[in-house]
Amino acid sequence: MDKKFFLGIAVAAAIIFFAAAVATSLPKNTISAEDRETLYQVSTIDALMQGVYNGVQPFSEVRKHGDFGIGTFDALDGEMIALGGKYYQVKSDGNAYPVPDSATTPFSTVTFFEPDFRITTDHPMNYSELSVYLSKHLPSKNMIYAIRMHGIFPVMKVRSVPRQTPPYLPLTAAVANQTVFTYAGANGTVVGFTIPQFFAGLNVPGYHLHFISDDKKIGGHILDMTVPADASAELDITPGFHMVLPESGQFAGTDLTKDMHADLAKVER
Amino acid sequence: MDKKFFLGIAVAAAIIFFAAAVATSLPKNTISAEDRETLYQVSTIDALMQGVYNGVQPFSEVRKHGDFGIGTFDALDGEMIALGGKYYQVKSDGNAYPVPDSATTPFSTVTFFEPDFRITTDHPMNYSELSVYLSKHLPSKNMIYAIRMHGIFPVMKVRSVPRQTPPYLPLTAAVANQTVFTYAGANGTVVGFTIPQFFAGLNVPGYHLHFISDDKKIGGHILDMTVPADASAELDITPGFHMVLPESGQFAGTDLTKDMHADLAKVER
Repeated sequence: MDKKFFLGIAVAAAIIFFAAAVATSLPKNTISAEDRETLYQVSTIDALMQGVYNGVQPFSEVRKHGDFGIGTFDALDGEMIALGGKYYQVKSDGNAYPVPDSATTPFSTVTFFEPDFRITTDHPMNYSELSVYLSKHLPSKNMIYAIRMHGIFPVMKVRSVPRQTPPYLPLTAAVANQTVFTYAGANGTVVGFTIPQFFAGLNVPGYHLHFISDDKKIGGHILDMTVPADASAELDITPGFHMVLPESGQFAGTDLTKDMHADLAKVER
Repeated sequence: MDKKFFLGIAVAAAIIFFAAAVATSLPKNTISAEDRETLYQVSTIDALMQGVYNGVQPFSEVRKHGDFGIGTFDALDGEMIALGGKYYQVKSDGNAYPVPDSATTPFSTVTFFEPDFRITTDHPMNYSELSVYLSKHLPSKNMIYAIRMHGIFPVMKVRSVPRQTPPYLPLTAAVANQTVFTYAGANGTVVGFTIPQFFAGLNVPGYHLHFISDDKKIGGHILDMTVPADASAELDITPGFHMVLPESGQFAGTDLTKDMHADLAKVER
């Protein structure tokens, strides 16, 4: 044994060290194909409808499950939009703020957005017309689709809700104090999902869309909008659904057997 | 550079090879804590109700998501029971067979069973009475619980269904040809779940239990049973729900907007 043997060991050790550093850094950034095609959801919409507003999961955890999506905040403090891995909070002043990792959510739905196909409008339409038009072009009614639509929207009518204080009122009462903003020629992105009817109780059947402007200054939950004649919606077919139910707190004790369908329609549009 | 340098490289290379082999073998056997507390589901109960019997996922994949659970097979060919990591198929002859990896399922629900608490009966009861008794002792009605109950059951009434041939009839029609077996003093394990009402459409709200005997020879979907006075049910609190929807085939084209609640009650008990 002499120096050259140990030089050989040293060179190889350097290679091992480098290889190990690469190998251990990979898993953290690698999200399985299954996770990427999955809608991740915290809690249920019917719990939120009944005033279960306490945040149950930090956004540091939510972020791990998606770079795209919508939701709300502890105490119903605004509308959440995630786009391109950045999370935004649109408060009741209508302005968008970055979401700190420590903020928590009582209800959110996110995924990793990777568009599978595109639907382009052939004439201007409002939200209801757009919903019918997109639905006609979906390959199956029994699938979750993430929807991203970038453009200049002639009318963009959005709302946010003010932070609530306990004891919490149901969502129908909370939205009575919502602030509504109507923008003309809004430059930005529509972010959201369309979900099959059989998810009633868990999520919002049909279209649930939020908006964030290109300058990331304004946004909200879309109440109505008009889209131009050549608007292009990108859709991500999402066959997986991963929901996490809160194990304790408000959620555990709430009566979730009621049919909230009619109330849901009131608060969504 | 001489031989000793390359000897050093060779020794180090052997170490790298060994370390790499260990490292790559680890992730395959590691199931995250989140996965362990998750009910994994293939397709929806309402699709099965409507005759969507084509297998869409092999059991080689299902096994990765649980060592415990219930389900059915391609063409509705019997009742599935998974217990202790072993998967069984109870065909319409009432006998249990091992499930090959290549077999496929149109609907299954599995998890990794790790009991969190126990409920012991204080008097003999039938299935309905047991359901009421267990529900009284659950910490929340808004949670999924996996249930395992081992014992000698004075009466165990189970069914299986014969393999169907296309065009498939709805489940209400298919179970008209079910075979029913009533065993006295059945030694074995009850395997299944109780699921909140808000999962209607996706899974069976309430109790859905299968049975497998200790000798792994008989079993089936439990229609009724009696449990002795000191029966002990082990329950696994399961806050996660991960469902995978079929992207094509029968599922994609089926009308899943109907309320199957009444039909479901007919086929379950």
